[in-house]
Amino acid sequence: MLVVMQRGASKQEIGDVEREIVQMGYQPHPIYGVERTVIGAIGDERGKARLQALDTLPGVEQVIPILKPYKLAGRELRKDKTHIDAGRGVVFGGKKIPVIAGPCSVEGLDQICLSAQVVKDAGATVLRGGAYKPRTSPYSFQGLAEEGLKMLAEARNRTGLLVDTEVMKESAVELVGQYSDILQIGARNMQNFDLLKSVGQLRKPILLKRGLANTVSEWLMSAEYIMAQGNMQVILCERGIRTFETATRNTLDLNAIPVLKHETHLPVVVDPSHGTGHWEYVEDMALAAIAAGADGLMIEVHPNPHEAWSDGSQSLTPERFARLMEKARKVAAAVGREI
Amino acid sequence: MLVVMQRGASKQEIGDVEREIVQMGYQPHPIYGVERTVIGAIGDERGKARLQALDTLPGVEQVIPILKPYKLAGRELRKDKTHIDAGRGVVFGGKKIPVIAGPCSVEGLDQICLSAQVVKDAGATVLRGGAYKPRTSPYSFQGLAEEGLKMLAEARNRTGLLVDTEVMKESAVELVGQYSDILQIGARNMQNFDLLKSVGQLRKPILLKRGLANTVSEWLMSAEYIMAQGNMQVILCERGIRTFETATRNTLDLNAIPVLKHETHLPVVVDPSHGTGHWEYVEDMALAAIAAGADGLMIEVHPNPHEAWSDGSQSLTPERFARLMEKARKVAAAVGREI
Amino acid sequence: MLVVMQRGASKQEIGDVEREIVQMGYQPHPIYGVERTVIGAIGDERGKARLQALDTLPGVEQVIPILKPYKLAGRELRKDKTHIDAGRGVVFGGKKIPVIAGPCSVEGLDQICLSAQVVKDAGATVLRGGAYKPRTSPYSFQGLAEEGLKMLAEARNRTGLLVDTEVMKESAVELVGQYSDILQIGARNMQNFDLLKSVGQLRKPILLKRGLANTVSEWLMSAEYIMAQGNMQVILCERGIRTFETATRNTLDLNAIPVLKHETHLPVVVDPSHGTGHWEYVEDMALAAIAAGADGLMIEVHPNPHEAWSDGSQSLTPERFARLMEKARKVAAAVGREI
Amino acid sequence: MLVVMQRGASKQEIGDVEREIVQMGYQPHPIYGVERTVIGAIGDERGKARLQALDTLPGVEQVIPILKPYKLAGRELRKDKTHIDAGRGVVFGGKKIPVIAGPCSVEGLDQICLSAQVVKDAGATVLRGGAYKPRTSPYSFQGLAEEGLKMLAEARNRTGLLVDTEVMKESAVELVGQYSDILQIGARNMQNFDLLKSVGQLRKPILLKRGLANTVSEWLMSAEYIMAQGNMQVILCERGIRTFETATRNTLDLNAIPVLKHETHLPVVVDPSHGTGHWEYVEDMALAAIAAGADGLMIEVHPNPHEAWSDGSQSLTPERFARLMEKARKVAAAVGREI
Repeated sequence: MLVVMQRGASKQEIGDVEREIVQMGYQPHPIYGVERTVIGAIGDERGKARLQALDTLPGVEQVIPILKPYKLAGRELRKDKTHIDAGRGVVFGGKKIPVIAGPCSVEGLDQICLSAQVVKDAGATVLRGGAYKPRTSPYSFQGLAEEGLKMLAEARNRTGLLVDTEVMKESAVELVGQYSDILQIGARNMQNFDLLKSVGQLRKPILLKRGLANTVSEWLMSAEYIMAQGNMQVILCERGIRTFETATRNTLDLNAIPVLKHETHLPVVVDPSHGTGHWEYVEDMALAAIAAGADGLMIEVHPNPHEAWSDGSQSLTPERFARLMEKARKVAAAVGREI
Repeated sequence: MLVVMQRGASKQEIGDVEREIVQMGYQPHPIYGVERTVIGAIGDERGKARLQALDTLPGVEQVIPILKPYKLAGRELRKDKTHIDAGRGVVFGGKKIPVIAGPCSVEGLDQICLSAQVVKDAGATVLRGGAYKPRTSPYSFQGLAEEGLKMLAEARNRTGLLVDTEVMKESAVELVGQYSDILQIGARNMQNFDLLKSVGQLRKPILLKRGLANTVSEWLMSAEYIMAQGNMQVILCERGIRTFETATRNTLDLNAIPVLKHETHLPVVVDPSHGTGHWEYVEDMALAAIAAGADGLMIEVHPNPHEAWSDGSQSLTPERFARLMEKARKVAAAVGREI
Repeated sequence: MLVVMQRGASKQEIGDVEREIVQMGYQPHPIYGVERTVIGAIGDERGKARLQALDTLPGVEQVIPILKPYKLAGRELRKDKTHIDAGRGVVFGGKKIPVIAGPCSVEGLDQICLSAQVVKDAGATVLRGGAYKPRTSPYSFQGLAEEGLKMLAEARNRTGLLVDTEVMKESAVELVGQYSDILQIGARNMQNFDLLKSVGQLRKPILLKRGLANTVSEWLMSAEYIMAQGNMQVILCERGIRTFETATRNTLDLNAIPVLKHETHLPVVVDPSHGTGHWEYVEDMALAAIAAGADGLMIEVHPNPHEAWSDGSQSLTPERFARLMEKARKVAAAVGREI
Repeated sequence: MLVVMQRGASKQEIGDVEREIVQMGYQPHPIYGVERTVIGAIGDERGKARLQALDTLPGVEQVIPILKPYKLAGRELRKDKTHIDAGRGVVFGGKKIPVIAGPCSVEGLDQICLSAQVVKDAGATVLRGGAYKPRTSPYSFQGLAEEGLKMLAEARNRTGLLVDTEVMKESAVELVGQYSDILQIGARNMQNFDLLKSVGQLRKPILLKRGLANTVSEWLMSAEYIMAQGNMQVILCERGIRTFETATRNTLDLNAIPVLKHETHLPVVVDPSHGTGHWEYVEDMALAAIAAGADGLMIEVHPNPHEAWSDGSQSLTPERFARLMEKARKVAAAVGREI
């Protein structure tokens, strides 16, 4: 932590800050510059955040943190990328890039089984489908709940695909964990800290979506919540952030891929369906994600998008998905990966 | 719902859209313009959101919703502003403007009781203080939990203030409801829909903070979640949104006040402490909020801000808070209100 | 400038950074912390920005600037607020708050003279009106150009109001300067640096609008461009920034008022018409601006808003403007100011 | 244009809106829905923007435009992608993807010629380098001006590369046009409309960078300004937008690529150097841009980034640029393009 004093701060003020730092258990180390003094606070990193409040003392201009706040999720802990084995040979973080695909919502047994078959035929290895749906309106379809989970399990039995589905509340973690191979935390719950702690106690992979207005740093802190409970199997999923642009539903932030490579050892999956909100843009952004180094894709596919109960506008038809997969294989090969 | 066809859409395509609208239970009404055709879909508003997926049909340019999605929270339902009586004569939405004040976190019995006394002396009528804290880092202080709730209750007994405190998870709603007069839903939980449904079953006022990246429309939909369960006592709280600007921690969006007056009958409280993140800016923005028509203020006050366990940088000293209140009374009088 | 080394940076890398700092003419001052080393660079502030590129050296984590980049515009230069005298007793930055009002565009002599009369009657002292209009579309009305300037001058003659109008290009600075008392730089030109230098050579007040996506710090740097040419009469004008919110055309950022008070001695005017984009919200935000400490208001008023050639949706009728002024006087009095 | 009436608007109000539409020269066409009435305005598209002001009439809820505001730049005008031939066989919009590379600023003859040689060796065909620099601070290096232009011309003579450089003001358009093959409009000048009109009178390719906070729609309107003057050779350049994220200097918005493919026939170039602001992230984002369908790349390369006079942090060394080009060729091949 570095405390930058105001230009013209008095010796008294500088002395007071140094004394306060000592009292908080740290060792002050001042640099007397031409225009102003900067005081480093050296000591144990735990609890350093409290030093931030030194900026309420007279003569202090600002307090600057210099350390990454995440530990378990950080690159400094682990230089190699983590491989997360979700079962049946599906590994996130390795050379092979798994593709998660399926409809926004589970709408019925036929719909989910048909979806599973078409995405499997095109090369996906994980089926997605929501049984619990976080909807902006209380009057929108909220998901089939446990019935939906059972349908996903049946689709898994029939096809051999893994299943990824969202869990929205602590009290459902155990139930969803019984049916799903990967548990998904949605964007709106990225900072639902009690839910994060709860899935941290499972020993199944957690797919953690980035919040609509969360920085990469905050996202990694949410991963840290899960990991601090002992579950190291966190897969990050970029799904678009909120900006002023309205041509896309969200702004899919592919910059997050190289930033994450630099900051963490955890794998990152990209969801261009939610990221763009328009099926026309999904293929191009999926290819871009792979070229940028993504470790997985999540794509919405529906047998009949215009009849979908939710998010039809961003869903691909089976034919378009198959075409995307074919192109994705070529781009993956060009960057030394496989699909 | 209005379906805008592409320029040059064929008769076949226009006909297909009309047939699809009929099949979904609505009545199509086309306008044949000079450059393109627009088709209105007339009928029951429930479930109209599904019509959005018509934009995956050939020849469709875009689908435009024209109705407000909120019903119970909307101005159309109720022309007068709702008065929410929190007890002991504290009413939100009336001529008198209640002030909620206190520390970010409950740190101990002495700290919370001293805080309660100083904010009461300056004119606040509700005590704030977190017993459960949503912290970005799992290593930060997470709150005193039920011990903290008991301390808040004791501070209430000693001072006669009401208590407002945050609830972060469904399983704690009942417990927090036993201790607190007003239950607060934090910004990060604004779209934690299960939590919203849960507090919707209480019959106590809910203070619903706006999410960091949520539009006013989405915020009202979250109020609608609570109201649809039968709890009509929702107090909205603007606390700053995320923008590119870094001079303030968030961008306190006072524009939300006149927008809400136009859209809803629910009262709105403003929190300039979280909104700006710097104590130096709190007073000016509190006065501005009142001038713009806010129905309440929420202000962080700590006996010793630089020793606060959280958010010290944005907390006022008791003296500064007293000065703010004095000025706020004058501005309130100038706009026909009282504090 | 502070250079933060990576955890585990080698002695060689630390030494290389120190040598590079010396070579650039600064004196290195290292702090050896528990987890990492930080190196301060002490010396002449001019040109310190180049030190930023040290972050391309091996072992460097980040380079943090600690000084404000603005000098002439900064509070450190001048503790008191600057008073800018625009003529005929209209002063920005004093106890009295001038109000600039009028239509978006000059549409004709009758329209501008009628507008001038109604805003004067309600208490405005400066007439606004665009003769050169920056329009998003090349097919929209672009302004009456010099004819418009002449009409503004005539309105001034008839009413005794001062005139404020926008200049969009260097080659028109002299001409606009002949007709207008205050020259306005629009939001889209806030970083048109050649234009800034050009108006810096005038000795008339410049009203500098904040760019749609510019930080307060960048805004003050643009003021610095004007001041570095010798023109110290810069009036800042907050007019809304771009965010994700669509309920308002822009997000009027009143937080900028206290931030500017803290950072600069220059006066600040607020434009709630562009800031919100809807006439319904203008009055509340104008009152809020005054309560927050604004030194002036800019309000769009049109005799017949629904016939306006531009921005009719955000223009007040004369009656609504008169009502706003009446309320504004009361709020101004409540915060120790006058209108 | 569609005028949506408020729920409960009176017959009188509906009639008034219809009469006003007639008076403005359009034909009203009402749809009487279950909950509200919508009135279409049919007629000549020119000037329809003025209908927006109908929202100030009593009973009107909102006015919704349904047509794209750009004509010459729009896909509707021209289905095939435009090929822009910049000379010496360099074509933007074709199968082959040109790469523009070089330093941020021209710093001297040796530096620019060495830069030109290294980027040419790696496969670039256009040299970039600023002779006029838009700098946030008036105290930063502002460019070598005409001397810099001469050095660029000399580098062109020695290497056979084309030259792309920025023009910042109308009065310099002719001069820059004498030296440069492609004239660049910077992000800060995207809505400097007089400058756009001025380069619209040239018959040289214009590289138009997207503004920091501009939508794709506004960007195309700025292209329209240039094209409306007769210059159809507009190359769009995505270079990052402003968001809340601080891990990157800007948020490079690759979504713009598929959106532009859908909306316009103009080619699009991507600049990951400004887009991310960190050299570490440039390669991944360059590859992603190609996979997403970019028609060109712009990359900052400096012989010694840590000695660069500007933007050193985002510049690649010659070795890193050569590696990027090698990888880019593979990705281009995978999507049916060439570099």
